[in-house]
Amino acid sequence: MFLSGAAAASAYVWIPKPVRGYTAAEMLATITIDNKVKPGTSKWELDTPALCVDLDKMEQNIAKMQSTLKVNGLASRPHSKTHKCAAIAKYQLQTGSIGICCAKISEAEAMIENGVDKICMTTSNPSKSKIRRAMAIRKKSSNFIQAVDLEENARDLSAAAKEAGVVADVVIDVAVGTRSGIPAGDDVLALAKVIDKLPNLKLRGMLSYDGGVQHAKGFAARKERALKTIQPNAEVFAGMKKAGLNAEIFSGGGSGTYNIMHQAPGFTDVQVGSYLFMDMQYLAIGGQDDANVYTDFQPSLTVLVTVLNNRFPGLLTTDGGSKAFTLNKPNAGVIGEPGMDYNAGSDEFGSIKITGTPSKSYKIGDKLECIVPHCDPAVNEYDWIYGTRKDKVEVVWPITGRGRSQ
Amino acid sequence: MFLSGAAAASAYVWIPKPVRGYTAAEMLATITIDNKVKPGTSKWELDTPALCVDLDKMEQNIAKMQSTLKVNGLASRPHSKTHKCAAIAKYQLQTGSIGICCAKISEAEAMIENGVDKICMTTSNPSKSKIRRAMAIRKKSSNFIQAVDLEENARDLSAAAKEAGVVADVVIDVAVGTRSGIPAGDDVLALAKVIDKLPNLKLRGMLSYDGGVQHAKGFAARKERALKTIQPNAEVFAGMKKAGLNAEIFSGGGSGTYNIMHQAPGFTDVQVGSYLFMDMQYLAIGGQDDANVYTDFQPSLTVLVTVLNNRFPGLLTTDGGSKAFTLNKPNAGVIGEPGMDYNAGSDEFGSIKITGTPSKSYKIGDKLECIVPHCDPAVNEYDWIYGTRKDKVEVVWPITGRGRSQ
Repeated sequence: MFLSGAAAASAYVWIPKPVRGYTAAEMLATITIDNKVKPGTSKWELDTPALCVDLDKMEQNIAKMQSTLKVNGLASRPHSKTHKCAAIAKYQLQTGSIGICCAKISEAEAMIENGVDKICMTTSNPSKSKIRRAMAIRKKSSNFIQAVDLEENARDLSAAAKEAGVVADVVIDVAVGTRSGIPAGDDVLALAKVIDKLPNLKLRGMLSYDGGVQHAKGFAARKERALKTIQPNAEVFAGMKKAGLNAEIFSGGGSGTYNIMHQAPGFTDVQVGSYLFMDMQYLAIGGQDDANVYTDFQPSLTVLVTVLNNRFPGLLTTDGGSKAFTLNKPNAGVIGEPGMDYNAGSDEFGSIKITGTPSKSYKIGDKLECIVPHCDPAVNEYDWIYGTRKDKVEVVWPITGRGRSQ
Repeated sequence: MFLSGAAAASAYVWIPKPVRGYTAAEMLATITIDNKVKPGTSKWELDTPALCVDLDKMEQNIAKMQSTLKVNGLASRPHSKTHKCAAIAKYQLQTGSIGICCAKISEAEAMIENGVDKICMTTSNPSKSKIRRAMAIRKKSSNFIQAVDLEENARDLSAAAKEAGVVADVVIDVAVGTRSGIPAGDDVLALAKVIDKLPNLKLRGMLSYDGGVQHAKGFAARKERALKTIQPNAEVFAGMKKAGLNAEIFSGGGSGTYNIMHQAPGFTDVQVGSYLFMDMQYLAIGGQDDANVYTDFQPSLTVLVTVLNNRFPGLLTTDGGSKAFTLNKPNAGVIGEPGMDYNAGSDEFGSIKITGTPSKSYKIGDKLECIVPHCDPAVNEYDWIYGTRKDKVEVVWPITGRGRSQ
């Protein structure tokens, strides 16, 4: 069962204040260095819908992740598909992550063009042109790693690497579930041996990302499932080592299994993403300490919206619809208002149903702050994210890889 | 009941061809004039996911809309929230539309900055800063019209118009349903009289957009509901005229009711959007000629995707997930493949379930073309749209107002 938006958000309280309505352009005009804006502007003065990240909370989430992984002997290789933001990727690398994962080649290009190094492309490139682009990145950075899951693809990659004058690091994408990658088994070893012999490829190990298990409800159930589904992959990894193949990377896992995957034999690093931001989906999965709410990380990512209509009993209309939140479930959680159910089902407008007693009577023009349903696609709706500290805007970062779904 | 993706898409056939994988940047590098690219590139050579519009079909849709409205004595004032594209807005104005609607002030700014005139802002601006921005647009264009639904808002608007040295044209947003606007009744007349007396406002009439009825299934049911819900608003409009107020605009309606609204007394123009593109949602509503499929307009908007995995029986994985299609329902329709059900529920990947017999055996790297679930938010995921004619790329247009949800 999903945790209702209200229940997850009820712990957080705020008081809306009179607002100005600064646009991204106006905030950007005050930038000095490193995308820092002129200090003093409250997030409540931003034009809405506005995507915000609480920098203190995000930094604490990162510190929590790194300290837990350190104890468990794993590394982090966070996924940039979550934030699509070069500034955040750089901060992750500065604070101990061993690399960054990218889901698509255009996303990886956006990252490398904006100074992010140590990229692992977790999806095989299904065309020669994409393979060639991957090798153009490899030419710029010797720390680039490319996933492969097909012999023909590996041969094309070796040819493209030769063309680019490089030896390309590769990992084999081994499936968990039925989405991407080659199923665990002898075919993986056969492919590994082909890669090992191809002149311009260097085998580094394998990926095994289990997307399905991340949102499994309850820590115990999640742990059981994650360790069960990874088992055949762990056997393949051991088989690669036994065959004398270079198998130094065994990467996978996510924000739902970051404190579980060290129990998978040979596992080296987790491809966590949402831990930075959290969202209503992750809040609902429950953790070790609280079966109902996942409290391991703090919700740092929010969208500010403005009330457009209050005329209909039991309802409020806001300026944030599916283009501001996406259609993911559970619904956005209105911070400080457990008696509100936020439906972003309409493209341009949000519809709030009053299910309890709001903290005040809302007027047209009042603002609300909401935890998003699912962080990755919500971030992908915006060109800019406002980084705040104690509710003051500190930075305005471009969402560097926004829309890079190619 | 929703029409299944397969059923709606089965009428359209295609044959995938060997592909190159041109990126938007590569296509843009060949642009000569008016965003036209070097002729000869097949859409099948584009890097995927790629958002495409068949220009012949789009132009035929526009011609069909204009000719039907002409017979019925209505005008069109199409909504740019659908396409967010200045080039398409200009084409609509060139082919007979009397203006363009914008849902948000940042969208209107994107349009006016890119040469689109005759904008009607259909949403009231809920803050003084947004009102001031609206008047900055009015200063640039005497054809700008702003919706208002609150006395305080009208007074602020008059003050901002005075500050900008203009007299601002306004329409009253009168609610149909419970989303935006002031409910039909005496309050509308009272507000109209206030506006009529405010020194820097000029009353032009009213808006009454019924979002809910557009997707009502079946022409007869849609007609009955649309004419019933508009009735109190039509009475208010008549009342404005009777009171001697300037009431020359009575605007609303959409692609589902474009051939119905002329029967609403006093109605002047329709705020159609999706008729350009169509999508699985509109295909499913049924029309006058076909109770099951809405055939009034042709599906012109598609997304091209590439097969990433074919290893699991009865399944294909593609590179187009919710960031390429959104989570709207019904599912995307795979053109020419009625035996495929496309689920874009995952952020980065599409999952196709094979429910019938595909036209061929699909390999990794093969491409598919899909009709999107819901056009407006799908377009909003992309920075560029490829305009094609007979499957050749003719133009690459920026989605000028993408992400402008403020």
